[in-house]
Amino acid sequence: MKRVAILGSTGSIGTQTLEVIFENSDKFVVWSLVAYSNDKLLGQQVEKFAPQYAALISRDGVECLVDAVKEADVAVIATRGIVALDAVMYCIEHNIDVALANKEVLVTAGKLVIDALKGSKSRLLPVDSEHSAIWQCLQGSINKPSKIYLTASGGAFVGKLADQLQNVTPADALKHPNWNMGAKITIDSATMMNKAFEVLEACYLFDVDASMVEIVVHPQSIVHSMVQFDDNSVIAQLSLPSMKLPIQYALTYPQRVSCNVKPLDLTTISSLQFCKVDEASFPCARLGHEVYFKHPLCATVMNACNDVCVDYFLAGKLPFLSIYSTVRYMIDTYEQQLCDAEYTLDAVKHWDDVVRKHTIKFLEK
Amino acid sequence: MKRVAILGSTGSIGTQTLEVIFENSDKFVVWSLVAYSNDKLLGQQVEKFAPQYAALISRDGVECLVDAVKEADVAVIATRGIVALDAVMYCIEHNIDVALANKEVLVTAGKLVIDALKGSKSRLLPVDSEHSAIWQCLQGSINKPSKIYLTASGGAFVGKLADQLQNVTPADALKHPNWNMGAKITIDSATMMNKAFEVLEACYLFDVDASMVEIVVHPQSIVHSMVQFDDNSVIAQLSLPSMKLPIQYALTYPQRVSCNVKPLDLTTISSLQFCKVDEASFPCARLGHEVYFKHPLCATVMNACNDVCVDYFLAGKLPFLSIYSTVRYMIDTYEQQLCDAEYTLDAVKHWDDVVRKHTIKFLEK
Repeated sequence: MKRVAILGSTGSIGTQTLEVIFENSDKFVVWSLVAYSNDKLLGQQVEKFAPQYAALISRDGVECLVDAVKEADVAVIATRGIVALDAVMYCIEHNIDVALANKEVLVTAGKLVIDALKGSKSRLLPVDSEHSAIWQCLQGSINKPSKIYLTASGGAFVGKLADQLQNVTPADALKHPNWNMGAKITIDSATMMNKAFEVLEACYLFDVDASMVEIVVHPQSIVHSMVQFDDNSVIAQLSLPSMKLPIQYALTYPQRVSCNVKPLDLTTISSLQFCKVDEASFPCARLGHEVYFKHPLCATVMNACNDVCVDYFLAGKLPFLSIYSTVRYMIDTYEQQLCDAEYTLDAVKHWDDVVRKHTIKFLEK
Repeated sequence: MKRVAILGSTGSIGTQTLEVIFENSDKFVVWSLVAYSNDKLLGQQVEKFAPQYAALISRDGVECLVDAVKEADVAVIATRGIVALDAVMYCIEHNIDVALANKEVLVTAGKLVIDALKGSKSRLLPVDSEHSAIWQCLQGSINKPSKIYLTASGGAFVGKLADQLQNVTPADALKHPNWNMGAKITIDSATMMNKAFEVLEACYLFDVDASMVEIVVHPQSIVHSMVQFDDNSVIAQLSLPSMKLPIQYALTYPQRVSCNVKPLDLTTISSLQFCKVDEASFPCARLGHEVYFKHPLCATVMNACNDVCVDYFLAGKLPFLSIYSTVRYMIDTYEQQLCDAEYTLDAVKHWDDVVRKHTIKFLEK
């Protein structure tokens, strides 16, 4: 029985992880649950799964995240932002597997995490559907990929032009065509900022250069990503859109077991569509490639600023297109002064805090 | 340097194998070349590649096939029909790898070949694009597939209804939309008999039941096949249509090296189409599933009869739709008497001969 710590248990990934564990109760036991502030749902989860440990970050402080992983075999990281950075590092230092659903950990601290993994028996198991797909496609390969095709649904506004995006509302942006996810990530999907994050994640997870990662818009979210090898053979992973599959694969890896997701029926779907990213309308999509070649703390600037902007957009206080222009402004503002900055976990936390405060001040003006 | 024997060197696969070897002359050397009767092209090949051994089946007899593999490291089987059966068995008995481009060997003697492999260090390396795809998709998996999606271009007449097929000519049938192959296999593609063969091959190569193999029509021939696992995750292999990629992969496996096939550009292709097989118009497509559950010699009947029918069709002496009805008739005719027949290599050769003669007699009436 694998003891599973779930950090962020009341969010979309957290609750689906609990479903996977419930459906595989012969293999997994819930060891610990940590939520941010949803005490009601956490209480229900504690009642159903009887974990050894449960905590609320808003009440018990961020230290509870490290406490929660201490005796686990695998920690599912499904928190928002960089709050779980220390817990991830603790896992790696103590040979605990990390099933990573959170994007920000690798976006901000990717190089630090990958370096730490080198001396550890801990495995970094991707849970993001795209990275799970890439990982599945690379199984058994003794060659590195020559290219990664990162598929993108394109989000709620796929196919729209920039001038059609000027007055879109949070309600519009939250209508994702394929995925039922948290609000933050659904907005990141609408701006395609999520792809900037995922490009960086892919670089760290699969040891490739950002120039080897191409974003391909695939509005149906059936092909979850693809890899290409030196011989120009491409391997792709497909399934109906469901986060339960990548969650379960990360937990049961390298085994596959029956999963509560319907089989794919390509003859009914009949056609799979692919197109290039419209970078003029969705300039955020390009930021991962751009930031990859800058000082690694620039990704922290991008992430922290975007996080604040999404909250402002959701609150109706920032136009959709200003998410990009604000992030763009902050990257340009900080790039120079970060040039020689030391890159440590503390620096990530420091600049995350600095940029959040700066962004709030900037947007409140 | 791997010593490569090429059986069927003047055919489509044979000549492309020589191209692959020429492009990878640091890894491979042509050990032997055997052609059926094209002495002119064989002569040119001998001049260019200076093999240790060269022979013509029509002049030197079938024994030359075994002689050709004797000191090879890998034998590429690209002959037509079952002429290479003994050579394949020789390879397996002497731990020589077999890169199998010929369908008939597994169709007729699949169980015998797979049984022989159990006591051998010889590896059976699929060269057919579909089986290479399945093989690539299964790399690194510790799970067996729960389903195999065998893709089919649908051949020259994809989308046509049975009554539109009544008066089609050999010239029509030879116009394959994606693949430039030999005449026999192009007609098998037009009738979709090739899929019946490939279903059987897949069963033997990947140890699955025919009910687990589904044919999916994909007219573009970009997705070369797919596998599905217990968790309903599907892994697919894609590339532009080219036999050089599967030939090379079989030879360099498990390594991948640069291959002279253009990279896939899905955003230009823009959409991948899939549909069900029209079994009313292409009843041959279903014969693999049907024959799989009969005595294994029924596959020999199917293959031998089809082979003769294709020759008659190409000669303008048999209508297109009569290929199926003739094969159907022969399977029905022989099924009963084969019920208790011993299944050996000699039996395969015997019944192959019997059915060929019977089919000729039947068609000449």
